[in-house]
Amino acid sequence: MSDAPQFDQAFLEKFEQLLTWRRDVRHFRTDPIDPALLSRLISMACLAPSVGNAQPWRFVLVKDAGRRAVVRRSFERCNQDALSDFHGAQAALYARLKLSGLDDAPEQIALFCDHGTSAGHGLGRKTMAETLDYSVVAAIHNFWLAARIFGVGVGWVSIIDPAEVTACLQLPKDWQLIAYLCVGYPVEEHDQPELARLGWQQREAPENCVLLR
Amino acid sequence: MSDAPQFDQAFLEKFEQLLTWRRDVRHFRTDPIDPALLSRLISMACLAPSVGNAQPWRFVLVKDAGRRAVVRRSFERCNQDALSDFHGAQAALYARLKLSGLDDAPEQIALFCDHGTSAGHGLGRKTMAETLDYSVVAAIHNFWLAARIFGVGVGWVSIIDPAEVTACLQLPKDWQLIAYLCVGYPVEEHDQPELARLGWQQREAPENCVLLR
Repeated sequence: MSDAPQFDQAFLEKFEQLLTWRRDVRHFRTDPIDPALLSRLISMACLAPSVGNAQPWRFVLVKDAGRRAVVRRSFERCNQDALSDFHGAQAALYARLKLSGLDDAPEQIALFCDHGTSAGHGLGRKTMAETLDYSVVAAIHNFWLAARIFGVGVGWVSIIDPAEVTACLQLPKDWQLIAYLCVGYPVEEHDQPELARLGWQQREAPENCVLLR
Repeated sequence: MSDAPQFDQAFLEKFEQLLTWRRDVRHFRTDPIDPALLSRLISMACLAPSVGNAQPWRFVLVKDAGRRAVVRRSFERCNQDALSDFHGAQAALYARLKLSGLDDAPEQIALFCDHGTSAGHGLGRKTMAETLDYSVVAAIHNFWLAARIFGVGVGWVSIIDPAEVTACLQLPKDWQLIAYLCVGYPVEEHDQPELARLGWQQREAPENCVLLR
């Protein structure tokens, strides 16, 4: 307890920069990621909180070209389908957005939640079972921030059919797909979301999302 | 782009300490949190990623004693109910665990996801709609890490009836409860989860949660 670290003003400012410059990256260079670095990022991800300390996160490193092609086709189809929901200028803008880095990112990681885990003995999950999935999201966010420290970008691809992607990975039945990540060095760095820069959706003021009760 | 920050080894080590010493806190001091600090933490939370840049997080600061009492009773009932699922030594250990800081923490914040938001125009949510909720989890995790930098502890209470808690807060119908947080200065600091220290659930080795496909 006496070893508890202190975090000074300099660290705080740098941490704020980290949050500010973490991006959902879609434009990747193809240079590989050192496997030792990837392992380190995963270890840092595993320091996330989890309900009942259940640690339900499972990192599936998708290496196989055939499986990557299944994911790529799933994205292509789902993205076409989403495009058809928009009209006029919004459809034109949607079509111009780059929404995945599947072609260039050297690493693809599917994140699953192990709904069958006995770890944690169910503590905290009876009333809000979704907290098990949320634990995996916290691990993903640790991974994302840690990656940015090393200059590594992460892009979260949600425009896929989760059943299709899960099936092609041949995993235990009770694993649920939480995220499909592209990981690699970004082509450029930004402090503003790409969707804000390209005019899809601007940032809201934080005070507008706070209520008193 | 030329202003992109570099993060050095010293920052990395400190960040790793931050992840290591962030805890789910249940033992709080009653000293108040400066409202300006709380606003700052919320602003840092709002730098989280969100699907389609939808920023669906809503922070409900629960101040009213009557509402807090509803939440307290909900926890008490749900916790008794959960205890009845365990037997023998495990039940005895469960009964000894402190699973909420509702009595002492000066701040209580309910985090909601606004399912009715038009921000983001649905981008990225058609195939995996749950990513809207996950965006709120990322904001919570930003808040949690930022709080720890200031020595402020966060405890996530999931042993409550979400319908009951939501009802007492009188919010728009399409807001979904993601988390109920206790926020305050912790009584002590630890680098190990309380559930590990007390023998409920140990840490797993990160390499055991990685698969190749």
